[in-house]
Amino acid sequence: MNQHVIVRTDRQPDPEAVAVVGRLGVATTHEAMGRRGLAQPVLRPIYPGARVAGRAVTVLSQPGDNLMLHACIEQCGPGDVLVVATTSPSTDGMFGGLFATQLTARGVRGLVIDAGVRDVAELTAMGFPVWARAISAQGTVKATPGSVNVPVVAAGAYVRPGDVIVADDDGVLCLPLEDAPEVAARALAREANEQEKREKFQAGVLGLDLYGMRETLARLGVTYIDDQTTSGGRDG
Amino acid sequence: MNQHVIVRTDRQPDPEAVAVVGRLGVATTHEAMGRRGLAQPVLRPIYPGARVAGRAVTVLSQPGDNLMLHACIEQCGPGDVLVVATTSPSTDGMFGGLFATQLTARGVRGLVIDAGVRDVAELTAMGFPVWARAISAQGTVKATPGSVNVPVVAAGAYVRPGDVIVADDDGVLCLPLEDAPEVAARALAREANEQEKREKFQAGVLGLDLYGMRETLARLGVTYIDDQTTSGGRDG
Amino acid sequence: MNQHVIVRTDRQPDPEAVAVVGRLGVATTHEAMGRRGLAQPVLRPIYPGARVAGRAVTVLSQPGDNLMLHACIEQCGPGDVLVVATTSPSTDGMFGGLFATQLTARGVRGLVIDAGVRDVAELTAMGFPVWARAISAQGTVKATPGSVNVPVVAAGAYVRPGDVIVADDDGVLCLPLEDAPEVAARALAREANEQEKREKFQAGVLGLDLYGMRETLARLGVTYIDDQTTSGGRDG
Amino acid sequence: MNQHVIVRTDRQPDPEAVAVVGRLGVATTHEAMGRRGLAQPVLRPIYPGARVAGRAVTVLSQPGDNLMLHACIEQCGPGDVLVVATTSPSTDGMFGGLFATQLTARGVRGLVIDAGVRDVAELTAMGFPVWARAISAQGTVKATPGSVNVPVVAAGAYVRPGDVIVADDDGVLCLPLEDAPEVAARALAREANEQEKREKFQAGVLGLDLYGMRETLARLGVTYIDDQTTSGGRDG
Amino acid sequence: MNQHVIVRTDRQPDPEAVAVVGRLGVATTHEAMGRRGLAQPVLRPIYPGARVAGRAVTVLSQPGDNLMLHACIEQCGPGDVLVVATTSPSTDGMFGGLFATQLTARGVRGLVIDAGVRDVAELTAMGFPVWARAISAQGTVKATPGSVNVPVVAAGAYVRPGDVIVADDDGVLCLPLEDAPEVAARALAREANEQEKREKFQAGVLGLDLYGMRETLARLGVTYIDDQTTSGGRDG
Amino acid sequence: MNQHVIVRTDRQPDPEAVAVVGRLGVATTHEAMGRRGLAQPVLRPIYPGARVAGRAVTVLSQPGDNLMLHACIEQCGPGDVLVVATTSPSTDGMFGGLFATQLTARGVRGLVIDAGVRDVAELTAMGFPVWARAISAQGTVKATPGSVNVPVVAAGAYVRPGDVIVADDDGVLCLPLEDAPEVAARALAREANEQEKREKFQAGVLGLDLYGMRETLARLGVTYIDDQTTSGGRDG
Repeated sequence: MNQHVIVRTDRQPDPEAVAVVGRLGVATTHEAMGRRGLAQPVLRPIYPGARVAGRAVTVLSQPGDNLMLHACIEQCGPGDVLVVATTSPSTDGMFGGLFATQLTARGVRGLVIDAGVRDVAELTAMGFPVWARAISAQGTVKATPGSVNVPVVAAGAYVRPGDVIVADDDGVLCLPLEDAPEVAARALAREANEQEKREKFQAGVLGLDLYGMRETLARLGVTYIDDQTTSGGRDG
Repeated sequence: MNQHVIVRTDRQPDPEAVAVVGRLGVATTHEAMGRRGLAQPVLRPIYPGARVAGRAVTVLSQPGDNLMLHACIEQCGPGDVLVVATTSPSTDGMFGGLFATQLTARGVRGLVIDAGVRDVAELTAMGFPVWARAISAQGTVKATPGSVNVPVVAAGAYVRPGDVIVADDDGVLCLPLEDAPEVAARALAREANEQEKREKFQAGVLGLDLYGMRETLARLGVTYIDDQTTSGGRDG
Repeated sequence: MNQHVIVRTDRQPDPEAVAVVGRLGVATTHEAMGRRGLAQPVLRPIYPGARVAGRAVTVLSQPGDNLMLHACIEQCGPGDVLVVATTSPSTDGMFGGLFATQLTARGVRGLVIDAGVRDVAELTAMGFPVWARAISAQGTVKATPGSVNVPVVAAGAYVRPGDVIVADDDGVLCLPLEDAPEVAARALAREANEQEKREKFQAGVLGLDLYGMRETLARLGVTYIDDQTTSGGRDG
Repeated sequence: MNQHVIVRTDRQPDPEAVAVVGRLGVATTHEAMGRRGLAQPVLRPIYPGARVAGRAVTVLSQPGDNLMLHACIEQCGPGDVLVVATTSPSTDGMFGGLFATQLTARGVRGLVIDAGVRDVAELTAMGFPVWARAISAQGTVKATPGSVNVPVVAAGAYVRPGDVIVADDDGVLCLPLEDAPEVAARALAREANEQEKREKFQAGVLGLDLYGMRETLARLGVTYIDDQTTSGGRDG
Repeated sequence: MNQHVIVRTDRQPDPEAVAVVGRLGVATTHEAMGRRGLAQPVLRPIYPGARVAGRAVTVLSQPGDNLMLHACIEQCGPGDVLVVATTSPSTDGMFGGLFATQLTARGVRGLVIDAGVRDVAELTAMGFPVWARAISAQGTVKATPGSVNVPVVAAGAYVRPGDVIVADDDGVLCLPLEDAPEVAARALAREANEQEKREKFQAGVLGLDLYGMRETLARLGVTYIDDQTTSGGRDG
Repeated sequence: MNQHVIVRTDRQPDPEAVAVVGRLGVATTHEAMGRRGLAQPVLRPIYPGARVAGRAVTVLSQPGDNLMLHACIEQCGPGDVLVVATTSPSTDGMFGGLFATQLTARGVRGLVIDAGVRDVAELTAMGFPVWARAISAQGTVKATPGSVNVPVVAAGAYVRPGDVIVADDDGVLCLPLEDAPEVAARALAREANEQEKREKFQAGVLGLDLYGMRETLARLGVTYIDDQTTSGGRDG
C-alpha cells in the first residue's frame, strides 16, 4: 500500500499491433476485443478527425490539482498517449497549451483525460489531440500528491500503464498490452470482411438476408402484419 | 397486444408539405405547429449543417441490441427518415457505416436515434446525417425481438410511422402526418412574415415597438429605474 | 424589493482593460483573477473559434418566456455582451436569428445564455457568437415579467450589469467591473511569462525542473519505484 | 389542430382490472404487459410505501406555469390519478398542498408529475402520494394556456386519458385502457407462478436449474474455469 | 482583490423575521419574496423532516479540500447556518460527524453544502440537519486556501454572509438580510390566506372559481370539447 | 482472451479484517486506505441504515439482460456481497425479490449493482440491502452471455472477486483482498483517535487549534479582515 508513487516502467505493447489498431480505429478494434474496453462516451475529442493509438502512461490525480501532470511528463516518450484520472469526479481544466508543448517535445501522441481541458483553440492549432470529459478554463493548484503509472479507471475503463490506447471520433478504447497482437489480427480479418459486406450492401443486398436473420426473427416470434388502422397497435 | 411486429404500412405524408417544412427547418415548423412536437435537445446532429425532412419509419429495440435495425431496412424507401427508440435508456452505438450504406442504397435520407451511433467519421464522409443521443463505439448484440413501424417515444417525442420528421442544427421535430399540409401552409406564412421583420430589425426598429410590448410590460408591472448604487437592487 | 425592473445604467468597464482581456482570452484572464469568476462548463459556444469581451447587460427571465429579451434590447449598445439567466432551469430556445439581427444593428458583440438558443445555422452564418446551455428549437411565450440589468447568476457565475464578460472556446468568465484594470495588467504579465515558458518547453525543459517541483514531490512523500510485476501495485 | 383544449371524457378502464394491477404493483404488471409502458426512473415517490392505481386524467402545461393544473381539477373524480407533463423540461414546484386538498376532496388517488412538487411534508402528512421528477419549492405563474385530457408523454411514457396508471416504490407504469383486462389476468397468473418459485428458492433450488439455464449458458459459449492466478483473466 | 480572506462580520438578520420564516418554511417564504432566492433542487436534506432558518456564514473552498471548513467554525455562533460552496463542481464528502460535533457545540443550526457530506447515519442520529448535493464518503485534503464570509453562489443561489437561510423538505432558500422583515410580514399574510383557501377547498370549492380563472382560460383561447374518438386529438 | 467465463475461486479476504471494516463503516475504512477505492456516489442504498461488509462475487452482464445474475448464484456463499456491473450504462431493474430469496438462502449479505433494482418494498421488508444506481421496474431478458468472478468496474470502482466490499449509508467501497488486514488495523487506530477528538470538540475545542491549522492558513496567505461594507469584497 505504497500510497503515492511514480513508477518507471518498460511495459511496451507490440508496435505493429499498435499501428494496426491505430489505422483501423476504435469501433473495429472494440469488436475484435469482444466488445470490451470502451470508455464511457462522456470522453469526447476536442476537434473532429483526431485519431491516435499508443502506449498508455497513466496519472492518478487529486481533483482540481495538476501537480502529478507535471510529474508524469518525464515518464512519457515517443508514441505514448497520456491517460489522466482523478480520485473523484472533476471537470477542471487541468491541462492546456503549455503541457501540450512539453508532450509534443517528447513525441507524445495525445491525451485522454477524465476531467477538463483548456486552451482548446491553441491545442487545435497545434494538432495535439485530446479526449476529455469537459472543456473548462477552470485553473488548478499544485498541492496534493498522486501517482504516475499505476492502474487507473478513466470514464469507466480500466487502464494499466503499457496498455494500448486507441482513440478517434467514436471514443476511447483501452486494449490490454498482452492481447494486442491477437486483437490486431482479428481486427484485420474483420476489416476485410467489412469491405466485402460494404460492397454487397451498396448493391442493395440486405443484412437480413446476408446474415440469415429472417429465421432468427421468426424464431423469436416477430410477425409481419399489414397496417390497417392508422392509430391502433402500439408497442411503446 | 401483439408483442413483436413488423408493420408494413402505406402511410405517407403529403410530399409537398414535406418539401416545404424541410426547406423551412425545425424552428419555423415547430412554431407553425403551435410549439409542439420537438424532441428533447439531447438529440444532436453528428456534423453541422445537416438538414432533412421525410417520412418516419420507426423501430423499437431492446437496449444494446440492433437486431430490429436489420429488420427495419426492408421497410424503408426513398425519402424516409429512420427513427430508432429503445425500451430503456441506452447510449450504445447501435448504428454505423454498414447500416448507412444499406439505407443510402434505398434512398433513405437520414437517421434519428434515441441511443448511440458510431463510425461518425465514415458517416460524415458519406454525408449521411444522423441525430443521436450519444456517439459511442459500444457494440451491440442481435438477440432480442422488438418492433418496426409501431408508435414510439424518442427523446420525449411521440412518433408514429408515416409522420413527418424534420431535423436540422436546431434539433428534431415530429409533425403528425395529418397536420402536415396545414402546418406547411402556416410555416410559409410565418417565413414571409419573418423576412419582413428581419428587414425592419436591420434598420434599427425594436421588437418592443414592432410587437407593441411596451404596454404589456407596463400592464405586468415592469418599471424603469435609473441605476443609483452600483451594488444595490437585486432580482436573483 | 422592487420586483420587476428595467435598470438604465451607465456602469462601464475600462475599455482598454476589456480590449486586453478580450485578446488574451478566458483561461489567462481567469488565472489573473485568482482562478475565479468562471461559469460552469455547460455553457458552450455554438461554433468553434468565437471570442468576445464586452460589458454585461443582464436579463432575468421566467423559463420558457422571452418577453424580457425583447425588453432588454433598448438597454444594449456597441461593445455589449448580453447575459441571460432564468429563474429556474430551462433549455428552451429563447433566442434566435431575429434577436441577433436586432442586437447586431446596435453593435452588440454576443450572447451568453443559461438556457437554449435556436437558429444556430443562421447565427453561425451571421457570425453572431452565442454561448448557451443547449441548442433547442423549443419556442417560448411572452407572458411573464422579469428584470433587466439586475445582478444574475448564470451557470453558477454571479454577473452584475457593467461587469466584463470574456468568452471563447474555453468557456465564459465574468470579471467584476472594478477589478478589470488590475486583472488586465496581471494578465499581460502572465502572457509574457507564458511565452518564455513555452520556448523553454519547446526546447525540452521540464516543468518539473522549471518550477522546482522535484522538492515538492519529495516533501509530499511521492516516491519513485521501478515496475517489477506488471499487475501488482495499484492506486485506484 | 385545435391547440388548447379541455376534453371531457368518459373513457374509463375496467375497475376490476384496475384493482388487480393496483394490488400486484408496477413490476408484475409491467412484465404482464410484455415489459412495456414504464416511465423513466427519474419519477420517484415523495415517501416510501406509496402505491396507487387509477384512471389517468392528463394535463399538458407550459413549464413554470400551473394554470392548467387549476383547470384540470374539475375533470377529476374518484379513483383517478392525475398525470402532468410539460411542453419542455422543468423541475418547478407546480403542485403543492392546496392542490392536494382539492383533489382529495374529489376522491383523486394521487399525482404523477414530470416536473417538480412542493409542500412534501404536508403531502406526506396528508398521505397524498406523488411521483415526481424533482422536489422543488420553485413557484409558478398562471399565464399560459395548455390542455387537459389530451395524450401526453411523461418521463418517456405515452399516456392517454383513461389509461390505467400504476405507481409504487418501483416507479410509474401506464397500461393502455383496452389492454387492462388481459394484462390483469396475465398478472394474476404471474403472481401465482412467482409464489411457487419463491418457495422453491427458499428451499435452496437455483434459478439456473429451475429455468433450465445451464444449457443456455453452454450454448452461448460460457465456460467454467478454476481461478489460478489471482490477478489474471479479465472481462472488463 | 484580496484573494483569500476570513471576514469577521456582525451582519445579523432580524431575529423575529428569522423565527417567522423558519416556522413558515421555504415554499411560503419563497412566494413572499416574489418567487426568488431558491437554490436548485439538487440540494436535498439527508433525512426527512429537517427544517431550519438562520444567519448564513459562508465558506468558499477548493474542491476536494476542507481546510476552510476548519477555518470557518470560529466565525459561527448560535442560530447560524453554515453555507459551503466550492470553486468548481464537486461531490466529495467535505463534512462529517466531527465537524457537526464542533458546530453543535457552538449552537449552529445546520449546514447547506453545494458538495458532498458523509457520516450521514451519525448526523441523523445527532439530529444535525444537512442539505447537500451528494452523500459521499470521499475524503478531502487540507492544502489549499479559500475564504470565509464572502458572497458565494451555492447551487445557483447567491448568498452573502448575514443573509437568512431557510431550508426544509422542499429545498433551500436565501433571503437577503435587508428584505427579511418585509418578507416575514408578507409570508404571515400569505399563511393566513392559505388557511382560508384550504378550508374552502376541503369543502369542495374549486380554485378555478375561487381565483376567477374561467375567464382567464376563455381569454387565452382554451376551449372545452367532448371526447369523441378515443385516439384522435393530440396536444403533445 | 477467453470471452465468457464463470470462474470458481477460493479467494477469500481475512474474516477478522472484514468484521472490523464492517463495524467501522465506509468513511473510516476509506480514510484508512489512503482515500481510495470508493465507488461514485450514484450508488445509493434502497433503505436507510443498511450496512454490510463481505467478499465480492462479481458479475459482468450485458445491459438489459440478467442471465448472468442467474449464473452467478451458485458461486455465492455465506458472507458474500454480490457486485454487478454492465458492459454499458443501464438503469434496468435486473434484480428483484426472487433473486434476493435465492441469495438469502445461501447466506449472501447484500448486493451492489451498477444498474437498477426493483421490488424495493419487498427487499426492504426482507431486510436485504441493495446499493444501486437506480430503482426501476424495467424488466430484462436472458439472452446474452457475460462473465462471473472476473474483475469489473462498478460505478468507477475496480473490483476483483475476493476483494472486500464495505457499504453503508455513505456509499460503497472496494478494499483489495491483500490490503484488508493492514487497512483494518489502521481503521481501528483511526477510530480510537476520532473518539478522542470527538470529546474535545464536544468540550468546545476547535479543529483549527487541535490540528495546528492557524499556521497553515497564515502560510497560505489567508488573512483575517473585519467586515466594513456589507456589499463589498467578493470571492466568487
